Amino acid sequence: MDPGSSSGSGSTSGAGAGTGSGDAASPAQGSAHGSSSQLNTQGAAISTREDSQETSDILLPNQEENIAQIAVDIGGSLAKVVWFTKSPETVGGRLNFCKFETVRIDDCIEFIASLLRDNPLAGRVIKDKIRTRLGVQIQKEDEMECLINGLNFLVRQIDYEVFTYDERRPETMQFDNQRTSELFPYLLVNIGSGVSIIKVTSDETYERISGTSLGGGTLWGLLSLLTDAKDYDEMLEISKMGDNKNVDMLVGDIYGGDYPKIGLKGTTIASSFGKVFKTPAAERKSKFKQEDIAVSLLYLVSNNIGQIAYLNAQAHGIRRIYFSGFFIRGHPITMNTLSYAISFWSKGKIKALFLRHEGYLGAMGAFLRTTPARARLASFTENFSQTQKISGSSIGAVGTLEEDASDYCVFPLLRDPETYSADTSDLSDPVLQSYWIDLLDVNLEHLVNIALKWQQGDARGGISVRERAKTFENMYREHLKVLRKEPNAYGALTVRGLLNLREQCLREMGFMDVFRGVKQDENNAAMQGLEILLAKLDAMPISDRLDAMLENMLAGNMYDWGSTAVQEMLKRGELDFRTAKAKVGRPAKFNHFPQLKAKLLGGHVYKKAVIFVDNSGADIIFGILPFARFLLSTGTTVVLAANTHPAVNDITATELREILVQAGSKDAAIASHVSSGRLVVVGTGSGSPCLDLTRASRDLATHAADADLVVIEGMGRAIHTNYAAKFVVDAVKVAVFKNPQVAAELGADMYDGMCLFAPA
Amino acid sequence: MDPGSSSGSGSTSGAGAGTGSGDAASPAQGSAHGSSSQLNTQGAAISTREDSQETSDILLPNQEENIAQIAVDIGGSLAKVVWFTKSPETVGGRLNFCKFETVRIDDCIEFIASLLRDNPLAGRVIKDKIRTRLGVQIQKEDEMECLINGLNFLVRQIDYEVFTYDERRPETMQFDNQRTSELFPYLLVNIGSGVSIIKVTSDETYERISGTSLGGGTLWGLLSLLTDAKDYDEMLEISKMGDNKNVDMLVGDIYGGDYPKIGLKGTTIASSFGKVFKTPAAERKSKFKQEDIAVSLLYLVSNNIGQIAYLNAQAHGIRRIYFSGFFIRGHPITMNTLSYAISFWSKGKIKALFLRHEGYLGAMGAFLRTTPARARLASFTENFSQTQKISGSSIGAVGTLEEDASDYCVFPLLRDPETYSADTSDLSDPVLQSYWIDLLDVNLEHLVNIALKWQQGDARGGISVRERAKTFENMYREHLKVLRKEPNAYGALTVRGLLNLREQCLREMGFMDVFRGVKQDENNAAMQGLEILLAKLDAMPISDRLDAMLENMLAGNMYDWGSTAVQEMLKRGELDFRTAKAKVGRPAKFNHFPQLKAKLLGGHVYKKAVIFVDNSGADIIFGILPFARFLLSTGTTVVLAANTHPAVNDITATELREILVQAGSKDAAIASHVSSGRLVVVGTGSGSPCLDLTRASRDLATHAADADLVVIEGMGRAIHTNYAAKFVVDAVKVAVFKNPQVAAELGADMYDGMCLFAPA
Repeated sequence: MDPGSSSGSGSTSGAGAGTGSGDAASPAQGSAHGSSSQLNTQGAAISTREDSQETSDILLPNQEENIAQIAVDIGGSLAKVVWFTKSPETVGGRLNFCKFETVRIDDCIEFIASLLRDNPLAGRVIKDKIRTRLGVQIQKEDEMECLINGLNFLVRQIDYEVFTYDERRPETMQFDNQRTSELFPYLLVNIGSGVSIIKVTSDETYERISGTSLGGGTLWGLLSLLTDAKDYDEMLEISKMGDNKNVDMLVGDIYGGDYPKIGLKGTTIASSFGKVFKTPAAERKSKFKQEDIAVSLLYLVSNNIGQIAYLNAQAHGIRRIYFSGFFIRGHPITMNTLSYAISFWSKGKIKALFLRHEGYLGAMGAFLRTTPARARLASFTENFSQTQKISGSSIGAVGTLEEDASDYCVFPLLRDPETYSADTSDLSDPVLQSYWIDLLDVNLEHLVNIALKWQQGDARGGISVRERAKTFENMYREHLKVLRKEPNAYGALTVRGLLNLREQCLREMGFMDVFRGVKQDENNAAMQGLEILLAKLDAMPISDRLDAMLENMLAGNMYDWGSTAVQEMLKRGELDFRTAKAKVGRPAKFNHFPQLKAKLLGGHVYKKAVIFVDNSGADIIFGILPFARFLLSTGTTVVLAANTHPAVNDITATELREILVQAGSKDAAIASHVSSGRLVVVGTGSGSPCLDLTRASRDLATHAADADLVVIEGMGRAIHTNYAAKFVVDAVKVAVFKNPQVAAELGADMYDGMCLFAPA
Repeated sequence: MDPGSSSGSGSTSGAGAGTGSGDAASPAQGSAHGSSSQLNTQGAAISTREDSQETSDILLPNQEENIAQIAVDIGGSLAKVVWFTKSPETVGGRLNFCKFETVRIDDCIEFIASLLRDNPLAGRVIKDKIRTRLGVQIQKEDEMECLINGLNFLVRQIDYEVFTYDERRPETMQFDNQRTSELFPYLLVNIGSGVSIIKVTSDETYERISGTSLGGGTLWGLLSLLTDAKDYDEMLEISKMGDNKNVDMLVGDIYGGDYPKIGLKGTTIASSFGKVFKTPAAERKSKFKQEDIAVSLLYLVSNNIGQIAYLNAQAHGIRRIYFSGFFIRGHPITMNTLSYAISFWSKGKIKALFLRHEGYLGAMGAFLRTTPARARLASFTENFSQTQKISGSSIGAVGTLEEDASDYCVFPLLRDPETYSADTSDLSDPVLQSYWIDLLDVNLEHLVNIALKWQQGDARGGISVRERAKTFENMYREHLKVLRKEPNAYGALTVRGLLNLREQCLREMGFMDVFRGVKQDENNAAMQGLEILLAKLDAMPISDRLDAMLENMLAGNMYDWGSTAVQEMLKRGELDFRTAKAKVGRPAKFNHFPQLKAKLLGGHVYKKAVIFVDNSGADIIFGILPFARFLLSTGTTVVLAANTHPAVNDITATELREILVQAGSKDAAIASHVSSGRLVVVGTGSGSPCLDLTRASRDLATHAADADLVVIEGMGRAIHTNYAAKFVVDAVKVAVFKNPQVAAELGADMYDGMCLFAPA
């Protein structure tokens, strides 16, 4: 299925999830399914967070999980808890995050106790107090090692974990997603109550080279004494209204302007709080506003940390500086000041790097200690269906991390994995952002209808399909609302990210495969025509046969329930295979098929082809199967790479294996190729309509290692993503443009067929 | 004259100068001598200083000077004024220092106006306000260049300007007096309201490489808001009573002890003010004591500056870090924290360097801009008779700087000027400190009596000798009191320093030459015996003659009004030349004369000898003259190096020239040598009973450059100082031990004669 295509666009504002879903959640919390304690602990976690979650009271039917491990990082100011839950139904699990003020350590312990109440625990937690209260086995881990392991894990595994910040740019957050590039050496500046500066040179080697006692504790301590604010967020809120120049002495206050001889601007702070002492003693305590004091102190602490970090980076010749710790907490002024300080002192050569999971590095690292292999395995994917905001804004929000059985790795045939970026469209343009968010909003209602139509009677945890569908709709619309306001809230906004988030929300509400019925119907219908189609093709001269097979692939790829434009045609019964063929345009500039054809007709035999498949029904059965069968006939081994997990009407690896059995019953050649092992199906590891080739399953990587041809089919995999991807072997990309935005961007018309061929 | 010898010791506590001299001052201020405005302005200066001067109301008859130049350094918090005064009677002048809070700039301007009232001004001051009010020519100077020029000047020219600080040592201040060693490169960390960090690589080249807005303004600003203290000194006073661990979170508070793996002690501050936020919000504002807050903030700012300074030094490979600016103001906790930070971060490899004139670098540098040659000429000597304390303690007190016509330089025959130190005794032992302070205290009364006896009727500025003598006595005794309490208050305590200070106080009270009459009587008496003595010597065989000449030098050196022990004999009429000869012991270990004699008898002819002479009377006429005449007879040119300015009964160059005229009238050989220019007198540039060979007059250096023999005579020049000095030519040191302490220290008995001979 190709996602998100549409011939038009519209904007529908989603209903507030805070109210709508709260109502929906009420009966669920009263119901007595097997995991009520988890639901309760989830509730406890939410109530103790300083940052309220707008989606916090949404019904969570997919949370029927047991707690496998708890890791705690107790700092001077905050205690951070990471807990890992496993579902009895699936292989992997998910990592959850929350934090408490350390002064409220009892709340934290009570929370952990509530997590443990009905669960076996293999957790590692710190401090005697916890041991006494909880009676569990405790293992104290080295703080610095935990921080580093946590960072290495997150930077390597989590999409858009790292970003830079600059308030002068329209998109203040710039994500640094080159996860495959060299990580070491780097400087980790962990800002908790105090600051540690750690030089990390490999997974095993690090040194705490510096630090400063001027950290979060200093800011919050002084602000406690100087303002009426009671907690962090009040302080940060106050600081937004302040103007430091009412408190600080600027270079211009002393010199009357710039001091160019030594390179100081008039607006540079010469002396923090320098205007206070210049004021007559009697007026000092009444004259200065707390908001001005707050922002001055925030600048003071942030600037100072930035300067000391830069000086250490300079002394050690390091160019990557990560800032972490709850001092930052996604607060724009803080990040901007740290960024400015690093940029100022390095004369623009170094940028401050931030992490979305900044506050959880220590707890994350502690979690990884029990299963160190996890730190190197790439088996986690971030699920944003339940987000946790880091500050009042959604900047740097984090989701739970979901582990599955895969160990992801870079697809071995990818050329230049260092510079590879899956996504084609740059959605930094606000117009494009609105367009895609609106498109998915418009699509939402139809998706809910399909869910209702096909999954009637499938109540989960005693909650009806109707209830779950309504909650899903509200949940996803709420996310779209957040993204409308802050497009980079969950990492860089991409078409892929929007589609993945929709899948995550569906699964969260227990809709593991909404299109299951649609796919079965489509597969059954197409399977009935397979024999005739193969006979027709076999009767053609080879050149015509190749042309016909490409036409079928393109026509099959029209059957796309993810595309709004195609959806309308399907619903109106306007699309049969013949119509589809007629509708697909064939502009020369997107048609490299003649080159591929010439190569094949010239007698070139590929040893092994990997074909990334797309939709169920006509697409796979009329489009892909005949082409695969042709390649097999020339001597090529064929690997069909299909989604491991369901996404829209995309065929899954499991479903595709069943199709091959059925096809084999109708065609001896296919049956023979399957039984000889020359036609195989592998799961890509993905559950997305798009394709990120840095996260291929190990199984796929193994099968693909000796291939000499890559075929990628469908708009999601070959246009929205991988349009620019290059391979070390011959590559074919086949798809139909079914979205007007991306068509316009790439110079195509709607329904143009594309067959790109790039020799190795 | 040999200073400070005594056969016993006693302690007399001086009367409080604050009261005693205040009475004496009253009539002077009412009198109408030519410089009343200066006296008034002096008064104004004192009243506006934050640090009161205990000696501030002492009568100052030597202050009849005109203001030649004013330099002002206006910082964010303080305005520093340096003004140069010239006496109509002398060639040089003196540099005076004072400071104002910048918020009271009007007081500062009024003070400058009062300085100008009756004076022509060639000053350079800053800011339009001053120009408007004062109507004087103003030239704005570059702040950084002024700071650097000021520092270079002070470090090169002023004794014991530079010190390190460590409160764990019994003597917290360790002076770094290697003024001749390489100055560049260094880091100047100037801490005013903000902090500038300047890398200085030569007199002309520098770069502001860093800085921080966390400076004095930050400390004082925050303390203004958080404590009841109204000014700097109250804040520093409060901080002395505080304990930062009540406010700061220590490493031990988090980890329960040390964190050895990353090298952090349990007592290290992990988070400044980190305990505040951990306290329940309602208690925060009442729980923390202002003294604890004050010391925590002081640590915070000082530690941070130290750390940033070290990181910059490290990045630029610099090992000398000077701290300057009024933030330090001789405050022990501040200096200790900066020192600790530098030592901590550099792992003990670098020490923080402080300057006694720390706050005046900018004003000093501005002063030097009108006469840049001064910055390189070494013509200033520090006069401690009027001290200005930098903080409540006397640590780092500064005197005025006196300029004379000399351009001092290193004596060219000195070997290893890099490691040369004039002073022999290490007075870091408190017992020795007490001994010498007591000895000079006991001597004081006799000195006053001599002044009264010989200078009757010599009223200056309408003030009688009696009044002036009393004020001198109180003034010097007050200084001794300060030094008893803080021996290093005026730089490292040395015998030389104590003697120089006495001379400075005498001159300050108009006693330019107390022993003038004594010296004339002694010279006249000895001159009458010269003809007979020379005839006797000429009749002797050469070997006996040489022995006799040494005996006469040693006996003559007994006539020493500076020695308490000898003084008593002289007063009782017990010392004639014969008695003196008999009294001098001749232990072999101090008698290298045989070697010198053998060299001379062996026919060695010195080309030129420089003889540093000592006392008037028998010493110069019976001791030195015959020996010089002998050397001249062998073909040696003789340079007699005598004090330029009077000190006790030491012969001055002027007096010595008169003696040569008289001696020439009695002895044709002497007359011939003088007229042929082979016997010359040069002023050493000094007015001290001791001798600092790094500060020889340019005239002496010129005459000495081609000499091949150096003779140093007297306890002050050859024992208290230069006992260990080495020369690149043959050197003879002749003296008598007339002080039991130094005799014991060097293994001699009282009245042992010394004649050391060191071949080149």
